[in-house]
This record gives sequence, structure tokens and C-alpha cells, in this order.
Amino acid sequence: MEKIYASLITIGDELLIGQTIDTNSAWMAQRLNEIGIWIQRRVAVGDDKAAIIKALEEEGKNSRIVLITGGLGPTADDITKPVLCEYFGGKLVQDEAALQNVLQLSAMRGLPVLQRNLDQALVPDVATIIQNKRGSAPGMWFEKGGSIYVSMPGVPHEMKGIMEHDVTGMLQARFETPALLHHTLITAGMGESFVAERIMDFENNLPKHIKLAYLPNYGLLKLRLTSISPDKQSAANELQHAFDTLKSLVGDILVAEKDVTMGEVLGEVLKAKKLKVGTAESCTGGKIASLITAIPGSSAYFNGSVVAYSYEVKQHVLGVQAETLEKHGAVSEKTVREMAEGALRVLDVDCVMAVSGIMGPDGGTEEKPVGSVWIAVGGKGKIVTKLHRFRYDRARNIDMTCVAAMNELRKWLEL
Amino acid sequence: MEKIYASLITIGDELLIGQTIDTNSAWMAQRLNEIGIWIQRRVAVGDDKAAIIKALEEEGKNSRIVLITGGLGPTADDITKPVLCEYFGGKLVQDEAALQNVLQLSAMRGLPVLQRNLDQALVPDVATIIQNKRGSAPGMWFEKGGSIYVSMPGVPHEMKGIMEHDVTGMLQARFETPALLHHTLITAGMGESFVAERIMDFENNLPKHIKLAYLPNYGLLKLRLTSISPDKQSAANELQHAFDTLKSLVGDILVAEKDVTMGEVLGEVLKAKKLKVGTAESCTGGKIASLITAIPGSSAYFNGSVVAYSYEVKQHVLGVQAETLEKHGAVSEKTVREMAEGALRVLDVDCVMAVSGIMGPDGGTEEKPVGSVWIAVGGKGKIVTKLHRFRYDRARNIDMTCVAAMNELRKWLEL
Repeated sequence: MEKIYASLITIGDELLIGQTIDTNSAWMAQRLNEIGIWIQRRVAVGDDKAAIIKALEEEGKNSRIVLITGGLGPTADDITKPVLCEYFGGKLVQDEAALQNVLQLSAMRGLPVLQRNLDQALVPDVATIIQNKRGSAPGMWFEKGGSIYVSMPGVPHEMKGIMEHDVTGMLQARFETPALLHHTLITAGMGESFVAERIMDFENNLPKHIKLAYLPNYGLLKLRLTSISPDKQSAANELQHAFDTLKSLVGDILVAEKDVTMGEVLGEVLKAKKLKVGTAESCTGGKIASLITAIPGSSAYFNGSVVAYSYEVKQHVLGVQAETLEKHGAVSEKTVREMAEGALRVLDVDCVMAVSGIMGPDGGTEEKPVGSVWIAVGGKGKIVTKLHRFRYDRARNIDMTCVAAMNELRKWLEL
Repeated sequence: MEKIYASLITIGDELLIGQTIDTNSAWMAQRLNEIGIWIQRRVAVGDDKAAIIKALEEEGKNSRIVLITGGLGPTADDITKPVLCEYFGGKLVQDEAALQNVLQLSAMRGLPVLQRNLDQALVPDVATIIQNKRGSAPGMWFEKGGSIYVSMPGVPHEMKGIMEHDVTGMLQARFETPALLHHTLITAGMGESFVAERIMDFENNLPKHIKLAYLPNYGLLKLRLTSISPDKQSAANELQHAFDTLKSLVGDILVAEKDVTMGEVLGEVLKAKKLKVGTAESCTGGKIASLITAIPGSSAYFNGSVVAYSYEVKQHVLGVQAETLEKHGAVSEKTVREMAEGALRVLDVDCVMAVSGIMGPDGGTEEKPVGSVWIAVGGKGKIVTKLHRFRYDRARNIDMTCVAAMNELRKWLEL
């Protein structure tokens, strides 16, 4: 069975000047992997005809499938459609379904229809048109020299709609693909080098078509096994066997047996134990709560939070003693413990996380440098505290604190 | 003056299977832009020798500068260093400074030194070595065929340290670059097509070396002017003139005169008015607070938040009436108004945002479909409410709600 390769081309100056972070590519790669297609290259180019054509030519040689996003909007900087039309030797014609879609969208939004909106329904006559139910620019499927090219809008939720509704199914119908399987586990508390030493024999003895990758991630370490094989059932069995062995080798540092967020890990534990959680956050400013509530169904185990940034909120809402703040400061074991106790009471929960630290860039002292964070976790009468020291910038210190707090509570719950 | 082009190559299977979102590229592009270097291509390839060499060859032809990240870790899946060593015709030798760095890092972490850690100090003898103060893998600067290649670790804060401390300065010393200037403004409340109609004459009359881009962004629209010109001073004046004209054309829908987040926009307004803000969040689960506190110095205007996910927290902490919840439900004008009133009182702030909605995927009804959100903003005795309806997935509904709430408060403050 032939291995099917794909390339992704993302188009837009905003990607090249760093104004936009490309989240589409990762999402598309996941969807293609699920149907056994391996991305071998991702290329980003600007809104520039020569650069787009060069990328189309090269990636058409590299891959049987070329997915293209971006540059399909109604404004003058969007040139992808005319460039594709010329490259594939077509001319622009009106697509009736796309036109109805544009008219309907304008009507729904109560807006007049402009010529530039109507132009969104002009499509190359050499393309198979894929309707866009979430926006005005349709998807376009071209074929040339044995490769398939699919152009989609760059707006993430529009691209996702077109991919999920049409493109993945159309690709599956076209290609017989091998099984491409990933299995990831997450560890905490041991560095990449030491884990590698411990599982060296395992790694050396893996069959050739199973690959092991190490992915350090916010103080955690993900280990990913990837298998590519023609037979889905035997590949799945073999990968499961390797995964079980790996799991047994890292049992003492294992956090999760799949690639999930720490919020999901914690959510599973809380659900299993039928416990309610809340947070009292100073330096993370609500981010722990937002990571927990990003997960659908989190209302089953999350009650709420107090984001206590000011001294007043720490005192009046959480009941931290004025004396504690005066004597020990906001970033202290005593304060974070009183914050945790207050949250247990106020939010009426079974367990809590409380954090108070200095995230930077300012506010550090010699005794409490930027990155110092007190974390308290626990339940009524059983609160444990720990001082963490991160050494990063503000954004990363906040993210590391969130993951560390959730991991501390997870460990406390599993004791 | 020659225009200096750069390519970025990111290496790692995790980028191609969608396990990791590439945030490095955007950051690096911003830093290069600041020193007048234009990224023309970004390429991502896997941990695969042939793919890495092909990318090096192609991008060396495309660009004078090729920045490479990833694949420098201490584990077997990291192959970038030996591949680069072979490609540039060197052999691995020990670098004394890198060795000392490795030993010091291990000592600081209280860990024994493994052979694979020591190996991090082996470097190609044909490279100029750039020390990594935040990790064990040093940066490497190669030259070949008139192009410069710089290899850096993929861990973001390590790459950033090397870029900021050394690489940007080294590139500046090497190239005389044109002025590459961007100027962005943000509008709200008018679609891309309609803004384009309004500023069509302006756009058509822009000088050739100034480019206008439209970037829709969470219900806002960014308009970016980019100028490339040899003379920095005249370019700056000319761009400022064009920007002022653009600003005057969109004055009624203008949100900000630079490319900032809505949290930053709101923060500026609050600082100028010397007001304190807080939030009462149900469906956003603390994300509005976390966006506000992501900004250094936000403690000057942010007191805290109550994340009221459960009915109990809404009642007991914010004082929402049981009758209101029973009669109107949590997602209602009356509830969100009482949440806002409660937050004003409890957090002792001058103004608040309160949100309650259904973010999905579950919980929608015919009357209140997924994406329905009540938003309340205002101050004591002057609260205004509005129902928004978003039509996206959970993550995007949450993000849209955060931006909408901050924008509503901004408008209220500027009335």
C-alpha cells in the first residue's frame, strides 16, 4: 500500500510578519493523520503571486495532496483565487449555490449585498466547488499532474467546516491509506534525559515502523509512539503492546495515558471521585479556572473561583487576615494557605488550588525573585503548600504555574 | 539597498502531526521585521534527514538568511545537529563554554550528569557557537554559498533567549537593511467588505511600496499598512501620513491605533480614567480576567473576579436572587445584571463586566441556542445589558465573548 503524503500551504503576509499564529496547520494535520495521511511539509508564503505559484509547483511534486488555506477574502489583498485560476488554466464563472449562500449570509446579517460579496461566488471553471456553510468563500478542489489541490479560507472555523463536512470524506474516498496511529502518554517529575536513559533498551528494541518521540511540555514530558503499517488491526495490536510496555516502565511518573491537557487529566480524577473543585487565584488571574472550564462538561466538578488580585479582595472575599498580608506579604505560604481555606468556604467545594506569586517582568526582589510562586492544594483541614520557582517570562510563568497547580492537586487527590 | 530575505525552517514531527502549534515562527518573524528583514517563506519538516537537507538546500537558494529551530534535544529522535554537521561538512568537537553550561545546569538542578547531557556540548567545528543561557543545546551559525544558517532549539524560551541576546545583533551587524515598517489599527462593528468599500479610494491611491491588509480577528477588524523603503525617516513620515488618513476614514469605528489586544485597549482606557475593574464570569470561566492580567502592570486597574459557574456561587458570592435563577435561568438579562451588581459590591470596583451564556457543545435550547450570551457592563446604578449570539464552537464562543465583553465596557467608558 502506497504511503500518501500531503503538503500544507498557508497564504498570507500576516503569517510572515508574525501578526498571526498559525493554528490551522496543527488542526488540519490531526484530521489528515486520522485518515492515514502523513503531512510531510508545511509551507507558509505571503500574498504574492510568484511565491504562491512556486509553492504550488514544489508541493505538487512533493505530495499527492496539497491543502491550501488563506487569501480568499473579499478585499484587494486577497489574491489566492485569481492566482489558482490562472495556474490551473481556468476562467472565473459564477457558481449558483455559492451565490445563494452569499445572498443568504447577507440577508441573515441584515446587510446590503456589495459587488465584492457577489464576486465571492465567482469560481474557476476547472475546480470542483465545495460549499462553505460558515462564510462566503467556497472551497475549491483542483487536480493537476496526478496531485489534488484543495483551497480553503484561512478563517479557522470556516476551514474546519469545509474539512469536516467534505474534504476528509472526499480524500478517503480517493485514497486507500495505511494505518497511521499515534499513542501518547504524559509523565511528570523527571527530565527528558533521565527518562531516555531509563527506557533506552525499550527504544532500541522497537520495531522499525514504530517511532518514539520526546516532547517536553510545560514541565511535563510527553512520550509519543507512532506506527505506520498497512494492516490496521495488527498495527493497533502491536502499538498497544509497545505502549503497555512503555507505560510499565514509567508507571511511577505517569500522569496520563493519552494526549490530553492537564485540565482534562484533573477533570477525569475529579469526576471519578465525585468531588467539586474551585480556585483562589492571584498571579494566574483566572487562567486555572479558564483552563478547567475550557472542557465541555466541567460544570459537573467545577463550582467557581475567586480571582483575588488586590489585597482587598484577598481579605474581603477570601478572608485572608490583614496581619498575614502585612507580616508575610501576598506571596507567602501563610497567605496562600488562607486563600485556599477561604476558597473552600466561600465556593463550597471539596478541594481547591490557591496560587500567589510574582510573574514578572516587575515585582521581583532578591528574596522573592520573578517566578516565585506559592501553591496550596487540598481539602478542609488538609492543605499542603509548596514553593515553586520558574525562570521564564510572564506568559510562560503563568502557564507553568497553572499546570503545576493542577498537577499538585492531582497528586494530592491520588494519595 | 538590497532587500534582505529570510526563511524559517522548523523541524519536528510534532509540527506535522498537529501535536504542537508553532508559536516560534510568529515571534521570530516579528523580531526580524523589527530589524528590516522580510520573511518570505516558512517551512516545517519532520525529524527526517532527507527532508531537512532538502529544506536547507531550497531555502538557502531562496534567502540570504535561514533560521532553523528544533531537533536539538538530548534524545534519539533529535537528529538536527548531526544532519547539519554533515551538510556543512564539519565534524563534532567539544565546545568548552557549552560544556561548562551543561555542567552548571545539572548542578543547579541537583541532577547527575549523563553522557547524553555531555553530548549537548559537542558542536560542528564549522559552526560559530552561540551560547544558550536557558538550556543545554547551544545555537549554531553556519555560512555556505553566500547564505547564513542559524540553528536554535525549538523550546520557545531558549530560542527567544538566543535570538534576543545574540542573533538579531549579529544579523544587524552583517546586513544593511531597508526600513520595514508596519502600522496597524483596529476597528469594530463593520464587516470587512463594507470597510473596504469605504476606503477604496484611499487604497487605490496608496503609493506602490505601501501595502494595505485586512485581518478579521474575533469580531474586530485589523487594518495594517506596511511600507518597505530604503530611507527610514522618509518612510516613517510617509507611512504616518497614510495612517493618519486611514484613521480619519474609520474614526467612527476605531478601537485602537496600534496592534494590541482588547485587554490592552481596555487597560489603557481604565488607566487614563483611573478606574478599577472586576469581572463576574460564568460561561467564560475566568478567561476575561486572565486576558486582563496577562498584561504587566494590570494590578493598577484590576482588583479581581468572581468566577460563578454554579448556581450556589452566583447566589452566595454574588448575591444573585434564587428567584431570578429559578424564573429566568442563569442565561438571562436579569441574572447577568445581578451578577454585575454583585461584582461591583463584592470586588469594590468602579466598573464591571458580567457574562452568562451557553458556549456548547451541549446545553443549547431552541430559545437559547449554543452561542447565546448575555453581557452586562457598567458602574453603580448604570448597568447596560446586551444579548450576543455567536455561532461557533466552544473555544471560539468563549474567545468571542471575552472580546465582546471588553469591547462593550470600552464603549460604555467612552460614552
